[in-house]
Amino acid sequence: MPSQSGIRVERIPGSPRAILWLEREPVNSMTLEFWRALSNAFDALERDETVQGVIFASGLKRAVFTAGNDVTELYAPRTTRKRYREFWLTQTKFLARLLKSRLATVCAIRGACPAGGCVVALCCDYRVQTTEGTLGLNEVALGISVPKYWAELFLDRCNDRVKGESLLQRGVLIRPAEALGIGLIDEVVGEGALMASASSVMDRYLKVPPGARATTKQTIRSEFSARWESYAEEEVKGGWKMLNNPHIVKALGGVLMKLSGGKAKL
Amino acid sequence: MPSQSGIRVERIPGSPRAILWLEREPVNSMTLEFWRALSNAFDALERDETVQGVIFASGLKRAVFTAGNDVTELYAPRTTRKRYREFWLTQTKFLARLLKSRLATVCAIRGACPAGGCVVALCCDYRVQTTEGTLGLNEVALGISVPKYWAELFLDRCNDRVKGESLLQRGVLIRPAEALGIGLIDEVVGEGALMASASSVMDRYLKVPPGARATTKQTIRSEFSARWESYAEEEVKGGWKMLNNPHIVKALGGVLMKLSGGKAKL
Amino acid sequence: MPSQSGIRVERIPGSPRAILWLEREPVNSMTLEFWRALSNAFDALERDETVQGVIFASGLKRAVFTAGNDVTELYAPRTTRKRYREFWLTQTKFLARLLKSRLATVCAIRGACPAGGCVVALCCDYRVQTTEGTLGLNEVALGISVPKYWAELFLDRCNDRVKGESLLQRGVLIRPAEALGIGLIDEVVGEGALMASASSVMDRYLKVPPGARATTKQTIRSEFSARWESYAEEEVKGGWKMLNNPHIVKALGGVLMKLSGGKAKL
Repeated sequence: MPSQSGIRVERIPGSPRAILWLEREPVNSMTLEFWRALSNAFDALERDETVQGVIFASGLKRAVFTAGNDVTELYAPRTTRKRYREFWLTQTKFLARLLKSRLATVCAIRGACPAGGCVVALCCDYRVQTTEGTLGLNEVALGISVPKYWAELFLDRCNDRVKGESLLQRGVLIRPAEALGIGLIDEVVGEGALMASASSVMDRYLKVPPGARATTKQTIRSEFSARWESYAEEEVKGGWKMLNNPHIVKALGGVLMKLSGGKAKL
Repeated sequence: MPSQSGIRVERIPGSPRAILWLEREPVNSMTLEFWRALSNAFDALERDETVQGVIFASGLKRAVFTAGNDVTELYAPRTTRKRYREFWLTQTKFLARLLKSRLATVCAIRGACPAGGCVVALCCDYRVQTTEGTLGLNEVALGISVPKYWAELFLDRCNDRVKGESLLQRGVLIRPAEALGIGLIDEVVGEGALMASASSVMDRYLKVPPGARATTKQTIRSEFSARWESYAEEEVKGGWKMLNNPHIVKALGGVLMKLSGGKAKL
Repeated sequence: MPSQSGIRVERIPGSPRAILWLEREPVNSMTLEFWRALSNAFDALERDETVQGVIFASGLKRAVFTAGNDVTELYAPRTTRKRYREFWLTQTKFLARLLKSRLATVCAIRGACPAGGCVVALCCDYRVQTTEGTLGLNEVALGISVPKYWAELFLDRCNDRVKGESLLQRGVLIRPAEALGIGLIDEVVGEGALMASASSVMDRYLKVPPGARATTKQTIRSEFSARWESYAEEEVKGGWKMLNNPHIVKALGGVLMKLSGGKAKL
């Protein structure tokens, strides 16, 4: 039974791992409330000393990890500066903390994984995706620019910076096989094998001493995480200004209209 | 008909793209005046709101993109500190601006592309080169060191830092196929297909919203560009000192003598 | 005849290259005295104007480059804060200087190359390893975290940051063929061909003007080297605190016991 918040935590008694199920039908579109629920659930797992690893997975009916940020949170006529700020800070703090979490993190990506969902995946230690899916930061195709640290993280994870920059500039979503080739995905499997593969990878992370593993992860990632989080407030200012640009309002209005099948009232 | 400055701008009426032809016979050697003409032509295109993309190409008779900086600009007995400073600042400001330009930039490289020409190419968004060519920063082979941000850019674009460092330290020019393998070139084509390939790539960049594309490019590249440009004055000091080192004067004198077929008067 | 310090310098009269043999039986475990001898030998070669390149190689009976830092230097009950500080500073200064040395440096790796030996190798310009060996930073598997700049260097040399981070977090040693695939090793050869391959690579470095080569290397590497060295004192503080953590003392005691075949007196 899906939880009301769209986030469900699955624990296996006696096991140091948990599964964080994203299941806000129909496409896990990420609102302020969804990010908050995700963040709170992750927080609780991180505080729980019996937990050493978390697998992120989609529990949706269709093959979608998440559709990314809910466009209503970005469409200025439908939100407020105050809510947008809260939205952006909640999301950014969660992502920056996820990046350096003491927990081993594996992202099990079933199907489509654009924008915000792609960033969640890139903050994990390992990504396994189903054969039939897409991955990337497609903001430019929607008419908005890629947030600074989303772009930096994407290029940092990508093993070919030139190709990565080209994808970002053109707002292209790529197939899992191509993402594998440039290091953005670690493993591609058939849909039936997704959770078993994620679990098998988690085994490898959980068999080493957790303290040494967590400290090494923080050594590698804490500087990036700190810069990212400390930039969030400044980013809100530029972001809100951009979202009120008439061209952007029009572009995002078009996206909303398309998503609603022409039935949105803007 | 080639222009006197060695730079010719080709516009296609009604199209948002332009071709910047480099055609200073015989090898597009880059003097102060050549960099200035290139910079001015690019500036004018960037200010023109009807232009969204620029293709750089060589219009020389032989298969050479450019031979790089004109050695007379580096050979201390043939220049002055004042001219060298002007030369270095003009070149560096152009390159740093090219790197973050709002314009989509594609470099169509016909044949040889050493040193300064390689840096122009690396500042573009995409590089397509003909099968029969060379690419690299061969300064060390000439007896001088690689400028700091040329080296950083080269290593940043290269998808294998260790191999990149080895190439720089040994001053090696590589073949397009090898450059493709380490990410320095994006596509290798037969000479007949060069301009069509460049044009086809440009199509891909021009079909996305230009504002979002340009902002994302600046997000990715403006910090590198700013550091590069702000280092130029300091680099002039070290550069001029190096160029007056008797060993370097002798080495560059030898290069000039070789280029002139033994007829240079040093 | 091996030297008492475990370090032997081989010069070929008239040649600008030297071989630095590590031959402290049985496994070149790196004590303070061993690092000091290595550092002094390298220093002397760097000051010698007739020397332009150094090959590092193991002269042990078994196929081991080095087993890495001697665990007794890290096991708090067997050392003192003062000795640990001296050990860490000596090692770090040597490594940071090796990274930016004017000398061309090639590492000929026969067999196993974990931890400290891996860092020596990564500071060289080129690494050739025998088919039957291992490479990596396996600190986490021993229960301790990877030192900050060891991790940064490893990820900087690796052409796939995601794979590199995964190896570090899990403390995995990899085979030479896998290391070749991610850029950590430049060449894999049969044991009989090791020194000939290292020598042949050295030829390529020595045929370019040494001043321009050395300056370019410093351009590329001096910032990293300076940050690394300047962090050493601060690292000693955190390191000593970590080594006195009861969990770490217990873990390293276990390693010592295992290495001694159960005969260590802790």
